[in-house]
Formats: sequence, structure tokens, C-alpha cells
Amino acid sequence: MENPLSRLGALMLMTLCAGVISGEAQENNLLPQPAQVSPREGRLAITDSFRISLSGYQEPRLRAAAQRLARRLARQTGIALPDRSEKAPSPAALVIHCDHAGEPVQTVREDESYRLEVRTEQARLTAPTPVGVLRGMETFLQLVDLDTRGFGVAAVDINDRPRFRWRGLLMDASRHWMPVPVIKRNLDAMAAVKLNVLHWHLSDDQGFRMESRRFPELQRLGSDGNYYTQADVREVIAYARERGIRVVPEFDMPGHTTSWFVSHPELASAPGPYVIERAWGIFDPAMNPTKAELYAFLDGFIGEMAALFPDEYFHIGGDEVNGKQWDHNPRIQAFMRRRGMKGNHDLQAYFNRRVLAIARQHGKKMIGWDEILHPELPKDIVVQSWRGQKSLAEAARQGYMGILSFGYYLDHILPASFHYKVDPMEGETAGLAEEQKSRILGGEACMWAEYVTPETVASRIWPRAAAIAERLWSPQEVKDVESMYRRLARVSRQLEGLGLTQRSSYGPMLERLTNMNDAAPLKVLADVLEPVKSLRLSQGHR
Amino acid sequence: MENPLSRLGALMLMTLCAGVISGEAQENNLLPQPAQVSPREGRLAITDSFRISLSGYQEPRLRAAAQRLARRLARQTGIALPDRSEKAPSPAALVIHCDHAGEPVQTVREDESYRLEVRTEQARLTAPTPVGVLRGMETFLQLVDLDTRGFGVAAVDINDRPRFRWRGLLMDASRHWMPVPVIKRNLDAMAAVKLNVLHWHLSDDQGFRMESRRFPELQRLGSDGNYYTQADVREVIAYARERGIRVVPEFDMPGHTTSWFVSHPELASAPGPYVIERAWGIFDPAMNPTKAELYAFLDGFIGEMAALFPDEYFHIGGDEVNGKQWDHNPRIQAFMRRRGMKGNHDLQAYFNRRVLAIARQHGKKMIGWDEILHPELPKDIVVQSWRGQKSLAEAARQGYMGILSFGYYLDHILPASFHYKVDPMEGETAGLAEEQKSRILGGEACMWAEYVTPETVASRIWPRAAAIAERLWSPQEVKDVESMYRRLARVSRQLEGLGLTQRSSYGPMLERLTNMNDAAPLKVLADVLEPVKSLRLSQGHR
Repeated sequence: MENPLSRLGALMLMTLCAGVISGEAQENNLLPQPAQVSPREGRLAITDSFRISLSGYQEPRLRAAAQRLARRLARQTGIALPDRSEKAPSPAALVIHCDHAGEPVQTVREDESYRLEVRTEQARLTAPTPVGVLRGMETFLQLVDLDTRGFGVAAVDINDRPRFRWRGLLMDASRHWMPVPVIKRNLDAMAAVKLNVLHWHLSDDQGFRMESRRFPELQRLGSDGNYYTQADVREVIAYARERGIRVVPEFDMPGHTTSWFVSHPELASAPGPYVIERAWGIFDPAMNPTKAELYAFLDGFIGEMAALFPDEYFHIGGDEVNGKQWDHNPRIQAFMRRRGMKGNHDLQAYFNRRVLAIARQHGKKMIGWDEILHPELPKDIVVQSWRGQKSLAEAARQGYMGILSFGYYLDHILPASFHYKVDPMEGETAGLAEEQKSRILGGEACMWAEYVTPETVASRIWPRAAAIAERLWSPQEVKDVESMYRRLARVSRQLEGLGLTQRSSYGPMLERLTNMNDAAPLKVLADVLEPVKSLRLSQGHR
Repeated sequence: MENPLSRLGALMLMTLCAGVISGEAQENNLLPQPAQVSPREGRLAITDSFRISLSGYQEPRLRAAAQRLARRLARQTGIALPDRSEKAPSPAALVIHCDHAGEPVQTVREDESYRLEVRTEQARLTAPTPVGVLRGMETFLQLVDLDTRGFGVAAVDINDRPRFRWRGLLMDASRHWMPVPVIKRNLDAMAAVKLNVLHWHLSDDQGFRMESRRFPELQRLGSDGNYYTQADVREVIAYARERGIRVVPEFDMPGHTTSWFVSHPELASAPGPYVIERAWGIFDPAMNPTKAELYAFLDGFIGEMAALFPDEYFHIGGDEVNGKQWDHNPRIQAFMRRRGMKGNHDLQAYFNRRVLAIARQHGKKMIGWDEILHPELPKDIVVQSWRGQKSLAEAARQGYMGILSFGYYLDHILPASFHYKVDPMEGETAGLAEEQKSRILGGEACMWAEYVTPETVASRIWPRAAAIAERLWSPQEVKDVESMYRRLARVSRQLEGLGLTQRSSYGPMLERLTNMNDAAPLKVLADVLEPVKSLRLSQGHR
């Protein structure tokens, strides 16, 4: 039962609201925009007899998704929908047909396409796979509109599929701890805008956030008690799969590893003791690639993580090794000379090859940041580029797959329009041959967490990540900034209904600043301020 | 690490804000008001070296509470506080001393008193028991203030103890399902205003919300899948104990039991089949007190629940039996004649005596609504009065203990000032002898959930329940409505920092009504409207 006041309000205010919205009704509200949209005549009304039916291939994931859809629709409209067995079934207003099962573990090859036909009598959503159904459900919810007749969906034909196969959001849980509910509600938001990869940055200098059972001292000493248990991780992975989202773990190495060394100084390139890093930046500690025991340790650790995370990819980071510990360690220098290595980049490539072999042995493909690119590495790795399309093009020409994160750094506090204009296929990549282009899998928005807490992180990610989601899903020619902003405002409000807090947490935070008094005067001031933006994209990626 | 913007903002805006608050600084912000407050000269500054130390009796509950206090203080002030082992300890700014352990299971006899002395150099919180420490911590947090010098606490001596021993909040999880996180955040809010009993209304006509392992069909057929597992219940009980809150379960019987009969029609007084009730009101279905198998069933069920809920009290409801099923059942009528019963009230008293015997056998004391009062019942039961002080006085005169809920019904949507004026010791109770008065244990705010969802429930409970909390904690002469409202506004903002949503959910809900458009015009309208209030307090309590 929904709040009757909402419903009463909705009825009373339809005329009022319909006036407000009519001026905007020509264009659809979808974000991301689908591949093809053809308006039709008519309108499907959403009433209290609205019902969803499922046909074709069935699985619990689909039934749960249909139930969530009904709940969200009820919440969005204030209409109490029938979802109870004892009521006589009315003809379904939304008929969902799924052809066949999807992949047991979702990959970049998963078919995410769907077709949605809305007519006055009925809407029909068909998709080859459950993931396609999930994408179409989000489209349906975004189509729901209110006019003088009440809630409904304008008749339309939609044929949709993503432009890129890898559409990710990186969440950094190391710099600031992000509890499971924060991760989950961001997964809900990702699903709403059709992102399909959670890149979970689980370790860094400032915290080791993962429970290892083989090496429990990693989280015991490296996390201040803030880490995900293996049960947490299973729960998040299941939650993500229910929403058609892959979970790729990142354990950054050989640099960004101070938190590992608190318990395992023997893995470092300089003697300890180490403490958890409390500042932000690029720090000296790095693993010692010359030590046999390092690889034995990593074999144990990666083996444990590979069994926990089902995704085919394992992210090893590989970024921002400043090399100082290597330069000052005579044993490492001797090792490099013995092997004829020309510099630290060669040493890191050696490390990467060893780690790659370990990852492969545990059934994983490797992904890492730009710096892992080295001619000696095999071609099945994926390069995540914070350097830009030029670096991505170079990798593609050499036969490597890549994803773009340059231009998608949410922590740089740039406007949505900035991110929206960054296209993985513009600049150097535009000139690639078709086969080379096919190696560019997509991109990832990055939420580095130096300056965000669980309370503020939603306001950094949303709604801007939705503009990136459209860039990665919609056809390349969808690029009207004004239209994007209009739809973005609407989506941001929708995301609050999913539990995101980018808008609702603003007032309470202002009130804390005013010593729990009325914050209206402060809001006037705060609303005209804007944060310092980071435009030094080429000087360092965090 | 707190958001540096918050801190920067705090520093920048101190002058601005201090101006706003200075006019209100004469009076303290505490809600509930303590028993004794004596302002002193000086001010303890809250700085980034603020540290808490614990001495005397130690237990994990106290350490966890100290950690929560530090986190909340950091959040409230935007100051990153040291809570890390590697830093050199500074002298503690807040010294906490606890004399001895509290009760293994908290009861109405628990000592909740504390003493708080704040001086320029240090604050000292002392209490006989951990629960007293918890109460004092909440006081300390409410004392934190901001002026041109930054955050701090004005020097003061506080001696505090509650006026009443039973200060409850009833949450109805039957009419609308309330998931565990909703219960938990309300426990946080209860602790903040020193309420000490969660009365958990777990079954009613519209839903059986508790997992029974002996009778799993109860929740399987009676809950639409929305029920608390036994693990959930243990988690909630532990969470409540950490905050000094007792959890009293209510399984309403013999009426309000339709949801039981979906799986167990044989317990009812009329043949089934039964379905979960979807409307609101008082319904006919009631248990059949003449059946031996009913008591065998209740023995099994109450035994199972008695082992799960550690509190000494077990609430059997007992309200609003309309008697129709009894009147129309010839077997029941014959039973009543045989036993010389004069009416349905006698039959219910018979039922209550049988249930009381079962509860006792499982180590529990019984509590129920007004209607359970009957001369044949022994004197160790507690009567919860929705009828008023007259009924409470009558019970006390007869030797029964009682708590007041008349005047504390939050679902009646009356102003905080209305509830604030209702005193358990005014009216008929004022004329009782001292010994009789001591039988009046306190009161409970009631949040019946016919018209609230998890999304709106906070806006019904808070901040009004805080006014009731003050009535039950503070000395009787604390009754300045204007002062209460000023402090209430502040507490409401503080509760949002604990995750409550009574203020932050308003905007997003208005936006849903406006079809995800700007809700500013609608807010103007909504702000001048007010809900229909229920003043028919004497005609039926829900």
C-alpha cells in the first residue's frame, strides 16, 4: 500500500503539473537515448490494475526484476499495484518475453539488446537475454509520464543496444571506506542508466579493504577495521548480477601498496616498518619484483580472489610507480643489470608478466592502467587509459584491447558537459582501422575517493556519471548538451527514489555547518559558489 | 577523514553562523532537558586532538559507544578526530568513567543516571552503569556548539536521571512492512532522545512479520514474504542493547489475528479459509479461547519467542476484540454458559489467564492493552493504556502497573505541543497515593503503520516523538512549549545526521508528484496545507 497522501496529491495536482510539463513533452526523457526511437499514436495508461507478465525463458533474476519494477512503478506514481496472488489476474499491461538464458557469468560478449513496443492496450518488452530485459525495464520506467489523464506511457517503438560493451564506474573504497549499502545503491543507479561494470578499487596506500582468509593480517592491520568480508563481496556480486552488472576487482600493484606492507613489509622494496598512509598523492612504497616469495604470495592471494570474483577480468592496477624504492635498492639494481633491463618500466613489465602468468593460471584475464602497456606483454590484456585516446589508439594498433577513462574522472569536479563531449572514438582513435576500433571496448567513469565520504560520494558521481553512461551507450551522434542536461535533471530526481542522496544530503550538511540552525542564508551563499576544478589531466591521474 | 570542504566551510562561515546563533545562546539545546543543569565558567574547545578515554568498568558496548561518539562528533563538526593507534595519545578531552556492569538483560530497574562535568580543560562523564554512560554521551553531543572560536562545549555541571523508567516507541511492522534498516535507524534516533523501549508490533490482521521455526507456515502464508528472520531479530536486539534500549515484542491476540489464520484457520472462532486482510479497521476474526489445541499451539509459539526475545516482558496485545465470531459460534456460547461467564470480556479474561500461565512458564511477565484489565488477573501484569489517565489510575488502584499511550498516538497527526502536554501523572493519576503512583512506569509513543511506508515513517515519528521523550525523561515542571519547539527543530536536524529521513525525503517525494520536474511551485502549496487530524481518541485507538 502506498501512502494515500501521495496518491491524493497526484490526483489533485495533475492539472497543475501537467501544465508544467507540457512544454517539454515533444522530446523523450530517456537517458541514455536508445539506438532507435519511433513515436506511435496512443498512450498506455498506468492504473491500479497494471500487471506484468513474463513469458519465454524464465529465471529467478527475471522474476525478482519484475517485482522490483512493479515496486518502483508504484513508488514513482503513488499507485498501489496488484502483486498479490489472491487477486484475479487482469490482462498484463506489460508483457515481457525473454528468449533464452544469458551467460552464466556475464562478460563483454553478453547480448544487452532489447525491443520495447508500447501501445494503448499493452506494452511488450522482448529481449534475447535477461540482461536485455533488465535494460528495457529501465527504459520503460523512464518513459512513465504524467499528464492531465494521469500516469501513462506514450506509444512508441524502441530498438536498442549499446554502442560499447564495457561501460563502467570505478568506485575507490580505499581512500575513504565505502560500506556495502553505499555500493549497493550505486549499483541501483548504475543499472538505471545502463552501466554494466563496477570497477571496485579495493586496495591502495590508504587501506586494504578486502578480507583475505589466507593472509588475514592484510585486512587486520591494513584497514582500520574497514574492509569487506567475503560474504559482503558475494552479496555485492549477486546484487550486481541481478542488475546486469559485472564486478571487476582491482588490487593495485606493484605501487599504491603501502597498506599491504603494514602486515607484509617483506614484500616491499625497502625495509619497513610501514603504517597506513594518511596523506594523498603518489608514494614511494612498491613491491619488490625481484623476490621469489612475492610471487608465491601473489599466487596465494590472487588464487583466493580469483575464486571469489567470478568475472573473467582481474585488474592489477599498475599505475604510478615512482620507482624511488627500486632506484635505492642495490639488490634490485643488480637484478636489473643482470637481466639487461633498461629502466624501471622494464622491471615493471617483468613484474606484470609474472603476475599475468599467475592470473592466467587462476583463469583470469588481466586489465591494468596505461603504464602496463609494454611490447613484451601478450595481446589478451586490456589497457585502461587515463592518458587519453592517443594512448588508447596506440594500444589498439599494437593489438591490445582498451577502455577509456581519460576525461571521465568524476573527482576532477568538471561539469557533465565536459565528460559528455569526451568520446572514446574521437581524436587519434577516429583514424583507426575497423578491426583496431573493435578493440576499444568502452570506458569507465572514475570516482577516486580522496575527497569524498559515504555521505558525499553520491553528489560527486550523480548525476554526472549518467552523462558518461549516455556517451557509452547511445549512438555517437547523440550529443545535444542542452537535451542531455534537461534529461539529466530528471534522472537525478529519479535516482533519489532509488536511495541515492546527491540532492537530499545537501540541506542536512548545510545545517551541520550552521550549528543545526536554519541553513537558508547559507544555502544562498553555497549555491553561488563552485568548487575548484582539476584541469591538470595530463599531470597525474588522481 | 572528513570532507575537507565541510571543514573549510565551517572555518569560513563561523563568523556568519555565530551571528545567527548568538541570540539563542542563553538557553541550552538539550532535549530531553536534564534533571539538573548548572552552567559554569569556561568552554571546552573541540579540536582535532579531541580524544575520549574510558576508565573503571569496561565492556565492548562502552568501547563501541565511544567510537560511535567520536565518529558522530567528527561528522557533526567536520573535524577529523584521531582514532588511530599509531598517533601519540594526547590527554583525553572527554574522560568517561563507568562504575560497574549493568543488568545482563536491561529491565525497568536499570540505573540510567549519569553526571557530566564540562570544564575548559576537560569534560568528565561518570555513571554507575554503561546505560547511564550512553545517556550522558547523547547529552554531550547535544551540548556541542559553534561560535566565533569554533566548535566547543560551554562549561556546565549536569546531574541527570529519568523521571519514568519505561519510555517507549511502538513500531508497527504489520500494516506496512518495516525492513531492518528502518528499525535500526529509529533505534539510533530513540537513543539520541533517551527513549529506552522499542515495542515491536510484529503481528496483526495485515501481516505476520516474524519467522517461526516451529510454525513456519505462519510467516510463509501470512506475510507476503515480508518478515523478520530470527537472525534479523537477534541483530536488532543486539543493536538496541548497544544503545541501552529494550525490545518488547507484541503478538496481538486473541483479536487482530487474521494473518495467523491464513495458515492456521483451526485456531479461529469461525471456519476459514482466511486471507491476509488488506483493509484497515477492526475485524471479526479472533482466536477460539475454548479450544485446547489453541493453548498447545501458543505454548509452542510463545516458548519459541520467549527464547528469542530476552526482555522480561511479553506483549500479548489483547485489544479490540469485537466478539462477533464468539457470538456466532454455538460451541463458544455453550462453553461460556457452562462456566457462568457474563460476557465476552469474561471469555477474554479466561483466555488471558491461560496465556499468562504459558508466558510465565516461559519466564515472561505479561503486558497488554487496557482491555486485558480484569479483576481475575494477578497483579504482576502491566497495562498499556490507550484510554487515558483514568484507566491508568484505575489499574494502579487495583495494584496493576501501567504505562500511558493515550495522547501519544503519532498516527493521529497532532502537533508536538499536543503530545507534549499529556503527562502520565496529570488528571486522575495526580490524586493517587505515592505507592500507587510508583506503579505508573512511563509511557509509549505509538506509530501505527496503516498510512506510513518505510519512506514516510520517519516524518511521522520524528521529531514529534522527541517531545514525548522529554515528557517521559525530564522533570514534570519542564513544560515550556516554545522552548521545546526551538530545541525540537535542532534535534530534528541532528537526527538526519543519524540517517533519519523526516526532512530529506520531503523534496524527492514532491518531485515524484511533479513527474520528476522542479517541485518548487508544488512545495509552496504543500507547505501551507496540513493533514487531517484524528481527534477521536476515545472511539478506537488505531
